[in-house]
Amino acid sequence: MSTVTEVLDRNSATPLYVQLSDLIRDKITRGEWVPDQKIPSENEFNALYGISRMTARQVLARLVDEGLLFRVQGKGTFVSRRKISTRSPSYMGIREQLEQQGYATSTEILSEQLIEADARVARELGLAEGTPVYAIRRLRRVEDTPISLHESYVPQTLAPGIIERDLASQQLCTVLELDYDLQMAHVTETLETSAASKAEAKLFGNRPGTPLLLLEQRISSASGVPFEFARIHFRGDMIRLEFHYDL
Amino acid sequence: MSTVTEVLDRNSATPLYVQLSDLIRDKITRGEWVPDQKIPSENEFNALYGISRMTARQVLARLVDEGLLFRVQGKGTFVSRRKISTRSPSYMGIREQLEQQGYATSTEILSEQLIEADARVARELGLAEGTPVYAIRRLRRVEDTPISLHESYVPQTLAPGIIERDLASQQLCTVLELDYDLQMAHVTETLETSAASKAEAKLFGNRPGTPLLLLEQRISSASGVPFEFARIHFRGDMIRLEFHYDL
Repeated sequence: MSTVTEVLDRNSATPLYVQLSDLIRDKITRGEWVPDQKIPSENEFNALYGISRMTARQVLARLVDEGLLFRVQGKGTFVSRRKISTRSPSYMGIREQLEQQGYATSTEILSEQLIEADARVARELGLAEGTPVYAIRRLRRVEDTPISLHESYVPQTLAPGIIERDLASQQLCTVLELDYDLQMAHVTETLETSAASKAEAKLFGNRPGTPLLLLEQRISSASGVPFEFARIHFRGDMIRLEFHYDL
Repeated sequence: MSTVTEVLDRNSATPLYVQLSDLIRDKITRGEWVPDQKIPSENEFNALYGISRMTARQVLARLVDEGLLFRVQGKGTFVSRRKISTRSPSYMGIREQLEQQGYATSTEILSEQLIEADARVARELGLAEGTPVYAIRRLRRVEDTPISLHESYVPQTLAPGIIERDLASQQLCTVLELDYDLQMAHVTETLETSAASKAEAKLFGNRPGTPLLLLEQRISSASGVPFEFARIHFRGDMIRLEFHYDL
């Protein structure tokens, strides 16, 4: 049910770069072009559709930014493999899931601090603004490529001294459960799009404004006490989240 | 744990517009600026941070596009109300959920056709490419604002004649269940970011490239037969998805 034709219309009010971009998107969505398939070069797009090489280059660059295409130096432009699928971290730690899929992962602790809860963190954790909470920021890499930034907030009173533990090699949820008896019983998650800030783009090695998938989680114990608020920024061009339901 | 200061740094390698954009984002994330709060005008940003009115205008326009801010003619720029939260449609029809939250919704049928399954649709539904499937495209509005575009594919053999039913006022899942005995038993969903194509942007009244949240669903019956593949594009600036787990 494509609304895209195989011919670009020079007389249309729609700019040629938008027409070409939609045509490429459509071929990928319909499965006509498959992952790892080489697509036409800028010169070939020029010959096929009469579009300037400059315009073709801009369109391809943008689709590479979005993660739909990737380039190999000296080889050309290819359709991206599907994004990495992971299920919600409330199902199984993201690291564990990626490792089960055969990816090599690593976690870098960016910062661990005791801070005063801002208005948002305080509300999520049911605390007064200014209450001391641990703020733990971690960057997760898959095969050396940064894919997600994890910001976790944990009330100091519930997990005193947790930032002295080794959170690079142990999962935070494991430490909370084994050392502080804080076991995940209820999880409320929201998922939305966001745009990379400058600091986030720097960590991910992409450009500010690049789409991210933002997962926010409030995690509570069986008695209903929230003990962690987490904000996970996934690279939108590399990750998609997967859910399974049996009804 | 802000990495943003209250002062813009003219000597920094980071452009002023990126600094201002991050500063605004940060105030909203931290809950310092709350929904419906009026934020400074372009002139006030100029006086406060020494940034040109033109730059301030560009930053505000971009954040309005992203859905973080909204404008009221003659009144100024305000922090957006939180996005509309809905749970997955496998939990309850999106329309039903929105109505429970007090929103007035409407559904417009954009097209209903019998087509040949493309490679992607065929794979999801376990069919051979070219098998006849119904393609049903609907636009959902909340209070007259388009918020989601629903594309559903249903094999003709499983639901003969379904496009002759009234799918604007009845939910598709209800018709599939009551008239064709196709009851949702297993659902596999993936959620990812995408960018509005020209056709999508036209329907949503925004610009091509604007972030969308793409939910894809494969719905199967208890016997494991997939009977619907759906692709739902939500406006990323208006919708976030919510999940609850009891473990």
